[in-house]
Amino acid sequence: MAGRCTLLRTRHALRCLRLVTRVRTALQGTAHTAPQLGVPSLSQSCRFSTTRTPVPAGPSRLSTRSHTCGELCSRHIGEEVTLCGWVQYLRQDLFVILRDFSGLVQVLVPHDESKHELRNTFCGLSVESVLMVKGRVKRRPEGQENKNMPTGEIEVCAESVEVLNTCRTLPFEIKDFVKAGLSRFTKEHMSDHPQSIKSEAMRMQYRYLDLRSSQMQANLRLRSRLVMKMREYLCYQHGFVDVETPTLFKRTPGGAREFLVPSREAGKFYCLPQSPQQFKQLLMVAGLDRYFQLARCYRDEGSKPDRQPEFTQVDIEMSFVEQGGIRALVEGLLQYSWPEEKGFVTTPFPCVTYEQAMQDYGVDKPDTRFGMKLTDVTEIFQDTRIGWMRDAVAQSHGCVQAIRVPEGSEVDTMVVREDGSLKSPLGRLLAPTTRHQLLRVTRANAGDLLLLAAGARERVRPLLGKLRLQCAELLEGHGVRVRDPAVFHFLWVVDFPLFLPKEDAPGQLESAHHPFTAPVPQDVPLLYSEPHKVRGQHYDLVLNGCEVGGGSIRIHNSAQQRYILQNVLKEDVVLLTHLLEALECGAPPHGGIALGLDRLVSIIVGSPSIRDVIAFPKSFRGHDLMSNAPDFVVEEELKPYCISVVWPSVEGADRSPAPPPED
Amino acid sequence: MAGRCTLLRTRHALRCLRLVTRVRTALQGTAHTAPQLGVPSLSQSCRFSTTRTPVPAGPSRLSTRSHTCGELCSRHIGEEVTLCGWVQYLRQDLFVILRDFSGLVQVLVPHDESKHELRNTFCGLSVESVLMVKGRVKRRPEGQENKNMPTGEIEVCAESVEVLNTCRTLPFEIKDFVKAGLSRFTKEHMSDHPQSIKSEAMRMQYRYLDLRSSQMQANLRLRSRLVMKMREYLCYQHGFVDVETPTLFKRTPGGAREFLVPSREAGKFYCLPQSPQQFKQLLMVAGLDRYFQLARCYRDEGSKPDRQPEFTQVDIEMSFVEQGGIRALVEGLLQYSWPEEKGFVTTPFPCVTYEQAMQDYGVDKPDTRFGMKLTDVTEIFQDTRIGWMRDAVAQSHGCVQAIRVPEGSEVDTMVVREDGSLKSPLGRLLAPTTRHQLLRVTRANAGDLLLLAAGARERVRPLLGKLRLQCAELLEGHGVRVRDPAVFHFLWVVDFPLFLPKEDAPGQLESAHHPFTAPVPQDVPLLYSEPHKVRGQHYDLVLNGCEVGGGSIRIHNSAQQRYILQNVLKEDVVLLTHLLEALECGAPPHGGIALGLDRLVSIIVGSPSIRDVIAFPKSFRGHDLMSNAPDFVVEEELKPYCISVVWPSVEGADRSPAPPPED
Repeated sequence: MAGRCTLLRTRHALRCLRLVTRVRTALQGTAHTAPQLGVPSLSQSCRFSTTRTPVPAGPSRLSTRSHTCGELCSRHIGEEVTLCGWVQYLRQDLFVILRDFSGLVQVLVPHDESKHELRNTFCGLSVESVLMVKGRVKRRPEGQENKNMPTGEIEVCAESVEVLNTCRTLPFEIKDFVKAGLSRFTKEHMSDHPQSIKSEAMRMQYRYLDLRSSQMQANLRLRSRLVMKMREYLCYQHGFVDVETPTLFKRTPGGAREFLVPSREAGKFYCLPQSPQQFKQLLMVAGLDRYFQLARCYRDEGSKPDRQPEFTQVDIEMSFVEQGGIRALVEGLLQYSWPEEKGFVTTPFPCVTYEQAMQDYGVDKPDTRFGMKLTDVTEIFQDTRIGWMRDAVAQSHGCVQAIRVPEGSEVDTMVVREDGSLKSPLGRLLAPTTRHQLLRVTRANAGDLLLLAAGARERVRPLLGKLRLQCAELLEGHGVRVRDPAVFHFLWVVDFPLFLPKEDAPGQLESAHHPFTAPVPQDVPLLYSEPHKVRGQHYDLVLNGCEVGGGSIRIHNSAQQRYILQNVLKEDVVLLTHLLEALECGAPPHGGIALGLDRLVSIIVGSPSIRDVIAFPKSFRGHDLMSNAPDFVVEEELKPYCISVVWPSVEGADRSPAPPPED
Repeated sequence: MAGRCTLLRTRHALRCLRLVTRVRTALQGTAHTAPQLGVPSLSQSCRFSTTRTPVPAGPSRLSTRSHTCGELCSRHIGEEVTLCGWVQYLRQDLFVILRDFSGLVQVLVPHDESKHELRNTFCGLSVESVLMVKGRVKRRPEGQENKNMPTGEIEVCAESVEVLNTCRTLPFEIKDFVKAGLSRFTKEHMSDHPQSIKSEAMRMQYRYLDLRSSQMQANLRLRSRLVMKMREYLCYQHGFVDVETPTLFKRTPGGAREFLVPSREAGKFYCLPQSPQQFKQLLMVAGLDRYFQLARCYRDEGSKPDRQPEFTQVDIEMSFVEQGGIRALVEGLLQYSWPEEKGFVTTPFPCVTYEQAMQDYGVDKPDTRFGMKLTDVTEIFQDTRIGWMRDAVAQSHGCVQAIRVPEGSEVDTMVVREDGSLKSPLGRLLAPTTRHQLLRVTRANAGDLLLLAAGARERVRPLLGKLRLQCAELLEGHGVRVRDPAVFHFLWVVDFPLFLPKEDAPGQLESAHHPFTAPVPQDVPLLYSEPHKVRGQHYDLVLNGCEVGGGSIRIHNSAQQRYILQNVLKEDVVLLTHLLEALECGAPPHGGIALGLDRLVSIIVGSPSIRDVIAFPKSFRGHDLMSNAPDFVVEEELKPYCISVVWPSVEGADRSPAPPPED
């Protein structure tokens, strides 16, 4: 046992054996001058680290270190410590700043002549080399404390050092990445500045270096803590069972965005599912009662911005529950797991209908951190003489709507003047009473900006909804405070339409969410007469204007499910035989939800991209720039799967050209 | 809010609306005869279930039920309860046994004339129909208690019932499956009896019914509890970070068993990795310090028995740690998470070298629950006149070895007689002194069986190792107690060879485990001279003769890793450029382990197949018999991925024929 402890040391030392020997010799030579320091022998420290007797819980248990860099403080003064970490930087040959995941600590390089070999070792180090330093914690000399550094009251006097690994010249400095902070990652940068794209590509290529930044470390650790708390809440407070479901599954109806996995049987393929939807429902039929899973999901969406081909959702399903039960569960879940440093989550969350959200915000995922709601002013313009407005109002669902942008004059010149007149091309066309009514209805003040749109309601609302968000961004760009970045606004949106006209064939209907959503009970008769009017028992969870979750009460009646698939959606039910059969075998009423974990965490940490909360994300184009995946595979390796590549040149010129090499 | 509560009820009632109305009418009619029962109104109970004010934590919180079936006991007598569950069976029109995940409860069907409609509803029910029953808990009449039933002291007098769903005639009865117990799943059954195979196929086809059995419910719930405890231990006691790694990756060297996923770029494929090995090491280079993940892994192994194309491992990696640290961590992990009802796990686990395991048990994953160790008796036969033995001993590494099977005469006739003579073809060939020595060395007693094998050590040991296990099975088949099924024997096996001769090219070496395992430090010089003699810092965790985990200290020195890949293994290092570069950028010493979760849980619950601890497993041939995956995909859907199917008939007659349709 004792023998084993020293093995690793020898192995590490391959490259730096010479150095270590020198250092040890130096230490032995000086031991008599400072016996009170009691440098422990190497085997002693190893035996400590691998001992079977209980040692305090924590991140240094069972390790070759005794403490982490970041935990040292005045409480440790006088203690002998063993630290392992990376050289953050060297300062004037006097100090080494050593870093590990927990933070930084200053290591004092001894300058007495007897320790010159130890000093030489330190001075020859490249940044990001890996060290094991033994030494004693002491208070920094008065006046040399660093109040900006959590360990700034102390320093560690090095007594021995072992170079565990060296580091070549890096493609970029770790601390640069820390300093650059969040601004690097904004979408604007990504699309407008080739330089930034290159740096993003470099971050991805050397992801293992990028992850050393304090921001990325913090993001991944926050994510880990969050999911642990979520699990606690679901398992211990509500009796949920964590069940894993397969990812090698079969194609689902309409699953055009599912990755295929060839099997060894000619022509047969597995699919990587977009969600465990069918399995979670089957688990309810199986009587599991309450299921959850942190589920890996797959979606082949090409190069949609800020999407990943694989992502993670907090997947939940319950039996014998109603909509209110699921919503209360999720509110409790977020309240319980929310990171303390991010404030307290107040429940219940406000709830609006889809219709109300569209009416007030022109979008089904409103950002409720600010006002600027849509105001219907059709009444005012009912008898207008402005031609295009009159035409717009006359059409089916025709309307005139407005948003008022407070302080909008900051960014535009179409403003309400002090005297109540409007600085606008419309201004002189409006009768005084119309103008007066408009100002009253929109509650416009001097300095505000009014934006009007006229046309069919289905077009006017989304238009103003987008304008509203753009105005907020514009104002913030000009220094007007519109949204508090430290604030989290949750909102439920309910009563969505169950079906929507197909984009490419408006005469047909498709599911607004998925074909398993139950209709709102009082709308059930409409299924058989006017299915486009049926509302679904679907609920979306919106946070700061982003959809972070969606779920529904499911259909548990086999006949109803079959009718919707066959008669309303015109789907081939053969693909879903197993689910329809399952509903005939005593399926309980059930419902659930899925939360998009990546997006949720990115909002919590204040990052605009989900790539900042995923350890190894793919690029926009679905590439792993570090390992160069996907990659070519020789034809020989395709044979067992009975497939071959159809090269564009073979097929003809109608195919798109090969993509450029750089992401 | 109140409105929402009644919606679900209306929806459920589609099919059974008429029934419910009748029942309610009946109840209202009788309310004055039994006012003390205080039947709560439906909306009241709903408001309770979805209320935002705190209700006791547990599996009925936020549910339409007030209690689970299995929790009711004499403590609840007199309470009004709402239960939701499945009809397990009807008994003499008097009782309904209602089941949910928690257990069974007896519901008393009222027989007074005023409640005949309620009674009619119950009597018309098919088994496995889903009910919501309201009623009052009362003590069973004296003499009618059922001590075999946890809820056997009480029954619930039904006051109303709602049929939430009906059930068609099932392909098999749920309780049959419960009764059949474990014997159904033995490998012998699977391969020998076509009837059993059919029933296994049916279990898989109707997996959602199979999962209703109490055994499967218990298995999945134990698994969920186990992983939750593991997470607690790793996160809270040791500072581990739960990090998700990608499953769309690139081909690894020698990754012949990796599933391919075609991308939209012609000829380029992702791979589903066999483990997160590279990512976990890169996370250590990234300074994450301590990583874990319940990782989904993929391996395309065709029809190996009891393997699954996707499986789960508890994946762990630590920086600044030695072998002993990882082993102590895993011992603590298992001790902490072990289900209470399965006994206490004693640590530390015993540890043997690979060489010792082969010597004593003829296998590198010995079942140490019983003896029958291999005994070397070469010495005794050094001068034997038995020709084939003499030849065997004379060859390189030649030996004669024996195992003694206590009470082996139960199953065979080659036995040690009372007078010390041997009943064996060999018996009369052995000189008396040889026979005497043999009995002494093997400590054979009357009634024992001796099995001898002679030949090269590399062949004799595995042969006797397999015989040893077969003898144990044979004896147990004859009622001799060899292994205690309630006992768990953990064992570490260490000091494996780092490289093994390739099976198809014995002159070349391949990694015994994987190319990232570090050599034992004192063997490092041998890397450059006699690499086949190098031992690796690898450790296997064995439980009851099954390998349940494996790990190693990794190479963190870039030059050493490159040398092994290029010069020893002759691999193309281009595929691993990113990893080699990472090791040059300040990689810390690190090591880890992966535990096979499916196998571990199957041993804990005493099931011979991992399919009994996976919710939706694939068949031997990798099929999902429920959904019929993998399945055919139309050529049109292959186009975006630039692949086409190579049908066997197109390629010629050298391909294997299409597999038979039945699994």
